[in-house]
Amino acid sequence: MGSNLSSPLVAIVGATGAVGVEMIRCLEERNFPLSGLRLLASPRSTGRKLKFRDREIEVEPLTEQSFKGVDIALFSASGTVSRQFAPIVVKEGAIVVDNSSAFRMDADTPLVVPEINAGEIARHKGIIANPNCAAIISITPLWPVHQRNPIKRLIVATYQAASGAGAAAMEELRASTEAYLQGREYKNTVLPHPYAFNLFSHNTKIDPVTGYNDEEMKVIEETKKIFGDPDIRVSATCVRVPVLRAHSVAVTFECERPIAAAEVRELMKTAPGVKLVDDWANNYFPMPKDASGQDDILVGRIRQDLSDPSGKSVTLFSAGDQLLKGAALNAVQIAEKLVKVPALA
Amino acid sequence: MGSNLSSPLVAIVGATGAVGVEMIRCLEERNFPLSGLRLLASPRSTGRKLKFRDREIEVEPLTEQSFKGVDIALFSASGTVSRQFAPIVVKEGAIVVDNSSAFRMDADTPLVVPEINAGEIARHKGIIANPNCAAIISITPLWPVHQRNPIKRLIVATYQAASGAGAAAMEELRASTEAYLQGREYKNTVLPHPYAFNLFSHNTKIDPVTGYNDEEMKVIEETKKIFGDPDIRVSATCVRVPVLRAHSVAVTFECERPIAAAEVRELMKTAPGVKLVDDWANNYFPMPKDASGQDDILVGRIRQDLSDPSGKSVTLFSAGDQLLKGAALNAVQIAEKLVKVPALA
Repeated sequence: MGSNLSSPLVAIVGATGAVGVEMIRCLEERNFPLSGLRLLASPRSTGRKLKFRDREIEVEPLTEQSFKGVDIALFSASGTVSRQFAPIVVKEGAIVVDNSSAFRMDADTPLVVPEINAGEIARHKGIIANPNCAAIISITPLWPVHQRNPIKRLIVATYQAASGAGAAAMEELRASTEAYLQGREYKNTVLPHPYAFNLFSHNTKIDPVTGYNDEEMKVIEETKKIFGDPDIRVSATCVRVPVLRAHSVAVTFECERPIAAAEVRELMKTAPGVKLVDDWANNYFPMPKDASGQDDILVGRIRQDLSDPSGKSVTLFSAGDQLLKGAALNAVQIAEKLVKVPALA
Repeated sequence: MGSNLSSPLVAIVGATGAVGVEMIRCLEERNFPLSGLRLLASPRSTGRKLKFRDREIEVEPLTEQSFKGVDIALFSASGTVSRQFAPIVVKEGAIVVDNSSAFRMDADTPLVVPEINAGEIARHKGIIANPNCAAIISITPLWPVHQRNPIKRLIVATYQAASGAGAAAMEELRASTEAYLQGREYKNTVLPHPYAFNLFSHNTKIDPVTGYNDEEMKVIEETKKIFGDPDIRVSATCVRVPVLRAHSVAVTFECERPIAAAEVRELMKTAPGVKLVDDWANNYFPMPKDASGQDDILVGRIRQDLSDPSGKSVTLFSAGDQLLKGAALNAVQIAEKLVKVPALA
């Protein structure tokens, strides 16, 4: 393939979305070594100008011709858009980092959290998938634990922000809350339920056999794939809470052998992509307001699971920026690895 | 004792608080057979008038003389107030239903959810404790399951509303959210962390040995006492979310023997105090906005726990009005049982 991976031309598909905007910011802040940046979006955003470094870049409409000369394309649009356009990008000889769920579970597609399985990137066949945000935030802190003392069972309850449903959902949370406070009616159009001071089960389809929703099945299946461990047993309850942009998760895990909460706390101090926030005396723990805008996933409330007398289970609470580590940052980190680790194909 | 339990004189301590106001409403709506109602509060509420049935009742200051002639006193103030005044009430020959945590774990004090252990009321020695709100909402739906197939392990993650911290916390959530939307600064004074579009670990003291906070330990210990089963193994993560008045809980439980989600769903259809809200096709499940103002605890998302291959574990999601079933309603239900079941003492 002819792609230039030392100073690539990068395209962002969905550049005006909540994640797209953060991708631009990550590329800028991390000094990504690119030779050019092409911003692609749906026709209604065409002509908008977005700042990148010292210049403004005009948003172009996404077409099949959009990828000429592109080396790396970061997709953050719908699964439908990814399924339609990613193969075109690959045919052009470029590499796709896809934030949709379209290819995540394909055997040929690496599903990568760089802190966990960066090595997987090398086996890509043109597409690398960025995992589900709730999965990334739940499992990134657990990887050092899993390497030390394999995690056999994982139970996750999420507290997911509006940002996971896009910029329009964030605006719906703001606008509906304002209406509520002013005693005005508000008709929700983005999310299926009223959002002001309310929470609801994640708005994805329920599997008619298992009763789990799509989001929960992503956390379950993607954990197994990213950890490279099909035997890890996972359960998840995914809930949308009235928070703007950072996801939180209550996580209980059981290891193969007994493990002390203190050992997990020590591991968190050096875990990549993780910041320990576990101040018992001041009751200061991970919060979405602190995680927002931060690269690191905040981890705290680390304690022995009192319901497991074997001493093998620990419970903790994490918060991570859904738009950054949960999406844009993780995708840009993958792209950074590509720049250093050219494809083998 | 001289108390009249067929048509009692009832006193409410903390009558102007978020729970006190709901106690008055419950007594009225449920046509509680009382001969009189005395409203007691701290001096700063003295003279306020609150409506009950067709008249207005003036709030009196709480003093040691407040309980002359009272038959049943519903306490919803601090643990300190309960510890100071409840013994005085008992000495007067009246019965206290106490919503604070002051006496809950005393061996002599019944801790009652009427749907679960109404029989405990008969052994009271003047004080009956109303359980923690998160405990009530988590375990009331589980009682019919526990009777059919004993629950051995319970893992709870809560999504707790502002109301649990009182009317001032509800106002802080409203006011701080308004300030956030208007771009104004807001200094939180009631809760320890900014609340607008944020969530945080429950604001109670952390046990320096276990790392659990007081709220979590209440859920853990009170579950054992209410179920009358010291061996049930419980773990809880208690989180305050930006919701006004209904608590939600993600619950995973393991039974002695395998149990199908379908069997749990059937049990929920007739469980007292519970309403099944589990509409997979329309993605409609328990939500705080629907639970607010409702007596019943809403239960849904009932499904097999995929992390337990033994088939003994089920996971579900509930929402219940913290001020009603979580506090005022449960206390009034206990008082109703007293009217029918005079004390044995």
